Amino acid sequence: MNFRMIYYLIGNILRLEAAFMLPALAISFAHHEKASFWAFLGSVVFLLAISLPARKPQKTAFYAQEGFLVVGLAWIVISLLGSLPFYLSGAIPGLANCIFEGISGFSTTGASILQDIESLPMGILYWRSFSHWLGGVGVLIFVLAILPMAKGSGHSMHLLRAEGPGPRAHKILPRMHESAKKIYGIYIFFTLLLMVLLLVGGMPVFDAVTTAFSTAGTGGFHIKNDSMISYSPFLQGTVTFFMALFGVNFYVLHLILLRQFSKAFANEEFRVYLLVLLSATMIISANVLYHQGGNLLNTLHHVAFQVASVITGTGFATLDYNYWPELSKWILVVLMMLGASAGSTCCGIKISRAVIFSKAAGCGISKMLRPRLVRLVRMDGEVVDDQVVNGVFTFLTYYALITILSVVLVSLDNFSFETTVTAVLACFNNVGPGLGMVGPVGNYHAFSDFSKLVLSADMLIGRLEIFPMLMLFMPSAWKR
Amino acid sequence: MNFRMIYYLIGNILRLEAAFMLPALAISFAHHEKASFWAFLGSVVFLLAISLPARKPQKTAFYAQEGFLVVGLAWIVISLLGSLPFYLSGAIPGLANCIFEGISGFSTTGASILQDIESLPMGILYWRSFSHWLGGVGVLIFVLAILPMAKGSGHSMHLLRAEGPGPRAHKILPRMHESAKKIYGIYIFFTLLLMVLLLVGGMPVFDAVTTAFSTAGTGGFHIKNDSMISYSPFLQGTVTFFMALFGVNFYVLHLILLRQFSKAFANEEFRVYLLVLLSATMIISANVLYHQGGNLLNTLHHVAFQVASVITGTGFATLDYNYWPELSKWILVVLMMLGASAGSTCCGIKISRAVIFSKAAGCGISKMLRPRLVRLVRMDGEVVDDQVVNGVFTFLTYYALITILSVVLVSLDNFSFETTVTAVLACFNNVGPGLGMVGPVGNYHAFSDFSKLVLSADMLIGRLEIFPMLMLFMPSAWKR
Repeated sequence: MNFRMIYYLIGNILRLEAAFMLPALAISFAHHEKASFWAFLGSVVFLLAISLPARKPQKTAFYAQEGFLVVGLAWIVISLLGSLPFYLSGAIPGLANCIFEGISGFSTTGASILQDIESLPMGILYWRSFSHWLGGVGVLIFVLAILPMAKGSGHSMHLLRAEGPGPRAHKILPRMHESAKKIYGIYIFFTLLLMVLLLVGGMPVFDAVTTAFSTAGTGGFHIKNDSMISYSPFLQGTVTFFMALFGVNFYVLHLILLRQFSKAFANEEFRVYLLVLLSATMIISANVLYHQGGNLLNTLHHVAFQVASVITGTGFATLDYNYWPELSKWILVVLMMLGASAGSTCCGIKISRAVIFSKAAGCGISKMLRPRLVRLVRMDGEVVDDQVVNGVFTFLTYYALITILSVVLVSLDNFSFETTVTAVLACFNNVGPGLGMVGPVGNYHAFSDFSKLVLSADMLIGRLEIFPMLMLFMPSAWKR
Repeated sequence: MNFRMIYYLIGNILRLEAAFMLPALAISFAHHEKASFWAFLGSVVFLLAISLPARKPQKTAFYAQEGFLVVGLAWIVISLLGSLPFYLSGAIPGLANCIFEGISGFSTTGASILQDIESLPMGILYWRSFSHWLGGVGVLIFVLAILPMAKGSGHSMHLLRAEGPGPRAHKILPRMHESAKKIYGIYIFFTLLLMVLLLVGGMPVFDAVTTAFSTAGTGGFHIKNDSMISYSPFLQGTVTFFMALFGVNFYVLHLILLRQFSKAFANEEFRVYLLVLLSATMIISANVLYHQGGNLLNTLHHVAFQVASVITGTGFATLDYNYWPELSKWILVVLMMLGASAGSTCCGIKISRAVIFSKAAGCGISKMLRPRLVRLVRMDGEVVDDQVVNGVFTFLTYYALITILSVVLVSLDNFSFETTVTAVLACFNNVGPGLGMVGPVGNYHAFSDFSKLVLSADMLIGRLEIFPMLMLFMPSAWKR
């Protein structure tokens, strides 16, 4: 186990985190927010103090095992230290609350324990939204794009596998290092485009910047208590489109930017994603109109917003869908679990995994009928490796077990069935709001500290697609 | 596809069903219940009319494919025709209600749409409980023990695999035919023993007979509106013990009857089962005592009853656990899904499947860390075949998909989250009562006909461990 190398890598990431705190520091200074200014300054100093001694070791050898550990540890450390400003400024009371809010930010969940968001200082509000943006493309990208030892070596593959952006890795360019830069480029481009459109639509600058960060990272923290309810239909519609867009694989976005539309459309996951978006919007709209009446276009507008928000795990809202009929709410719950595309900023099971899973299940039943039959799972016209199929089953196994265990633990708080289940699903799938007490206009403050820590763990486990976090708790992963 | 053979097999089973209706006919006659007397007589005549023309075909060849189809069809036909007396006598109003009640009986679910059970005629009450007893050991056993062509041929293996009493088949004796007789012997012995004990405990004869049938089949229909709430602690305790006993694999019961205790205790599933029973009872008791106070022994008595009732899928109750704290209710929900031992009269996922699943998941994560590692899943000291492990994963895949699909369909009725989820789980895992509106003192009458049919399908799919029912809807299963 190359501990020096692990420390070196995490040290580099923490130095970056300190640098990323500087805008928040500047905003606090500009708005004369004393407490948060000192909190950010203290956090920056602390981050530098613990990260500066990290030196590149002589032995840089690095295996799959260490890849998992680095990724797992890095996210824990970044999230915990990222919540330092909340704690030091006193903006958020209580350590468990600060940890919950910090992890919710970096894991792009957007679940909050705050009852009055608008009373927070600007610097803190900025940092909350910006943490989504950083968490969106992940530590992976930092590591890949910035650390020199990632160039041309096999290390990056180990990290990529550990952070696991879905069941199979699509490489945009042959070299990981180049791919990472390209992904960052696409991410920044669309974030800026969204900011401009929001400004054109008349949104104030601070709102536009933070909304764009939250949307791009598919996070869901907002600076308003009522999320996006009071913005204009144009602004809501723009955010709908961009939420859906950030649920697309970066590889497909890359193809679209190169105007290779037919190649983009040939991507099976992309087509299934569009189909799910469309059919969920149709069914929920019909269900809501049937039960509650209303204007067709207005209903479609709002339903499309919530569908895009929930499937991508953003978690913004333009209405309180707690009042929707049960079928509509259940479709949202299924979308929560499903998630959007692999290789996007989203979380959840991911569509490509669901597709492989359904196809493998179909093969399984055929084999039962005709044991000698050989049927292979295909995706995008290629045979999916057995190891990938097994990986998907292993993933879903742990997904189910962790969900059930978390629900049982959180049920100790004695909240309703609906609240307990959807709180766990909304955190584990990094969505943010659930149903009942944790619905889009509710929050998580009433949970016990114990439940907040369980839900925080779920957010991190979900964000890293389970395995890196599990491995931190396996003694064998720490052995040489 | 040997359709003549399928008709012949099902015809034989229907003739048996007609014979099994005779006691109910006699009871109706003895109690001067005119409507039910004519209903049973009509049903018997109808069953004989459609089954008597079935003759043994010249070609008796029979493959896995046909095995699945016979089992699937047989259960549908038996359940539907078994609900004929409910419909003809007018004791249960509405066709969907009769079908629901009939399938609930034969699938040993015990979910009811009746609001006043005690107003039913005796003949009908007897038939409801007796259908549990018949469903308990399954059509398989009829087929094995009675049909001459099952002797020494491979047909029985195909049927056994189709009815699937768990992930792996334990044979008590080398020949299937002998095994089946032995299972029947054990089943009848313990049913009679329970009847005697209940009579000794002062239960009226009719109550004792029907309660024993429901308990042995782990069904849950009872002749009282308040289930077992008003019986004495001795009677409740006796039923607790026997519910737990009927959750044990017949193979282990056989060993116990032979006094080979150490061999019985060497069975891994049996040990895990006892551990689950014990720990669930402890945790729930602690949780209930902490929140609601009360007498320790009295709490243990009632908790043990509900735990045994829910894990075996019986569904009797001695109190309304809707009032338990959420953690306790959630443990019941997990037990519902888990189910008891493979090769018992119970349903659900089954403990042996859960054990294989957990072990395979552990191997999966080890392989991720060290790709070249070879780790095998072992149970009872033997290596579990890869095909069995894959079968378990395929099973759980469909288990999850069917659960989610059913919940979405039943949510159309717009009942609460808790009611919708637990109604599906209670039917699919053949438990009977769930939580909320379908709790132990509630019932299913408020659901729409559509939901009743969805839940009826769930009961049959769950009872047959999914695949035989799915295959009826696969065109390729009907091809030669």
